[in-house]
Amino acid sequence: MTVTDIALVGIGKIARDQHIPAISADPAFRLAATVSRSGGVDGVENHADLPALLAARPDIPAVSLTMPPVPRYAAATAAIAAGRHVMLEKPPGASLAEVLKLDRQARARGVTLFATWHSRHAEAADAARDWLADKAIRSVRIDWKEDVRKWHPGQDWIWQPGGLGVFDPGINALSLVTKILPVQLHLTEATLSFPENRAAPIAAALAFAGPDGLSAEAAFDWRQDGGEVWQIEIGTDAGTLTLVEGGARLMIDGTEQTVEAPGEYPSLYRRFAELIEQGESDVDPEPLIHVADAFMLGGRETVAAFND
Amino acid sequence: MTVTDIALVGIGKIARDQHIPAISADPAFRLAATVSRSGGVDGVENHADLPALLAARPDIPAVSLTMPPVPRYAAATAAIAAGRHVMLEKPPGASLAEVLKLDRQARARGVTLFATWHSRHAEAADAARDWLADKAIRSVRIDWKEDVRKWHPGQDWIWQPGGLGVFDPGINALSLVTKILPVQLHLTEATLSFPENRAAPIAAALAFAGPDGLSAEAAFDWRQDGGEVWQIEIGTDAGTLTLVEGGARLMIDGTEQTVEAPGEYPSLYRRFAELIEQGESDVDPEPLIHVADAFMLGGRETVAAFND
Repeated sequence: MTVTDIALVGIGKIARDQHIPAISADPAFRLAATVSRSGGVDGVENHADLPALLAARPDIPAVSLTMPPVPRYAAATAAIAAGRHVMLEKPPGASLAEVLKLDRQARARGVTLFATWHSRHAEAADAARDWLADKAIRSVRIDWKEDVRKWHPGQDWIWQPGGLGVFDPGINALSLVTKILPVQLHLTEATLSFPENRAAPIAAALAFAGPDGLSAEAAFDWRQDGGEVWQIEIGTDAGTLTLVEGGARLMIDGTEQTVEAPGEYPSLYRRFAELIEQGESDVDPEPLIHVADAFMLGGRETVAAFND
Repeated sequence: MTVTDIALVGIGKIARDQHIPAISADPAFRLAATVSRSGGVDGVENHADLPALLAARPDIPAVSLTMPPVPRYAAATAAIAAGRHVMLEKPPGASLAEVLKLDRQARARGVTLFATWHSRHAEAADAARDWLADKAIRSVRIDWKEDVRKWHPGQDWIWQPGGLGVFDPGINALSLVTKILPVQLHLTEATLSFPENRAAPIAAALAFAGPDGLSAEAAFDWRQDGGEVWQIEIGTDAGTLTLVEGGARLMIDGTEQTVEAPGEYPSLYRRFAELIEQGESDVDPEPLIHVADAFMLGGRETVAAFND
């Protein structure tokens, strides 16, 4: 097997919780360098910024970008221009236009761009998609609720314009449901709840329409107490499919199904290695389109101030 | 010449000001019917709703939809399903996802879908695009300012969620600038000004980035007194191009250029006839992508209440 040297850019919570363990466990990659202003990883060469890494290490062919969405475009553009394969955390950008531009830049430069949606690699995602493929879809209900203090401690960027607020986790649900459903949805109504002291929503209620009168509902909430709920329930002509724990577990009519998969981030890096090997890109903006539609079409309400 | 019977759906201000005169003057079309709850056009068969028209007149092959964006998707879906060619006023939908779905539906059904951007057919648009094609772009400045009371009298839908507020005219500027520029832009910052009693913005300030450090700015405002300003100024290595009056007139370094074109709506219907003849569709969501990005990425400020 070819071992590809990879640099990890942005050493925050998601990098330490997910990316570093996944890269370490994957024989296709070797963590050759990091980029972080606030400290890297023991025993791995660190650079203060991406231009320094790109200049010092032309031999590293791949980079994985985990920083927040607003600064990600400039980094991805620089890495693509330097001929590196690029993997992007979700969401792939702060705007749709920049994601579409990165896709074109990568194709023009002949490098792989992988705009990841980690929830599409949840353990039960493929099994859910396969089971739904020949069913008539009658209802879709998404509940994605977590305690923002637990899952985004001190992450101020999530409350800034472009940080997306509760859509940062909510887009995981949208990425998963758009993978597994055999039909396509479009947003018809949304209500976004903004804390009076914040520039991003803490909760959102969404309604979608599908073919043949299908309607779908989603409730995203960051004010959850007592354990997160990351659940999708889909009613069909052959029973009810339920994904819980963000897609890690699958039930059909309440009976748990056995699923086998390597887990989200190991699966993401396996896919990145395949894409590099095949000389292809994987950029699907659909989950971000639904989020943009919710901001554009949705009504707003002001709710109680939120303080960390 | 083949004369195509066409039905006009939604007989409001834009239909009376633009669509009816353009259809009447175009030898390729005959206005065969209208759909309006509040009264049609003298001497033309009228139906109370689109399903009634589609059922009563299977012989009419083309429909032009001018109603507000929120109800437009259901109408377009019904018309496409009934095998009619469809022309959509701008914006082509209330959400991006529905525009992409309509495009797929039309292709699957084998009919023409024309998502129009009337400002792309302004008299000087082609000349501006041709002049810019080989220039290095140094700056872009858009000013699109009008009195909402003059241009949208009593149109309550523009203030509702999905009505887009000042982006309803602003998207005209975005459609024109994305046609004429030889480079692509993406939104980097936006400030949207919401009247304290309204659910849509009355003004917006946008910043975009392009290649090689290019930045672009746009100011949209509905609070304009004393005459509208619909202007785009583009600085290049070979002088400054200025479009005024929404693209009807073109200046290079202040010298007016002679342009010849049939005008926006006559040109739109000419193009619709060509697309039907060629069996093609024309659906470019890019202007709506920039608007969605502004709502998603933009910050918000509250400004004085607006009352008609």
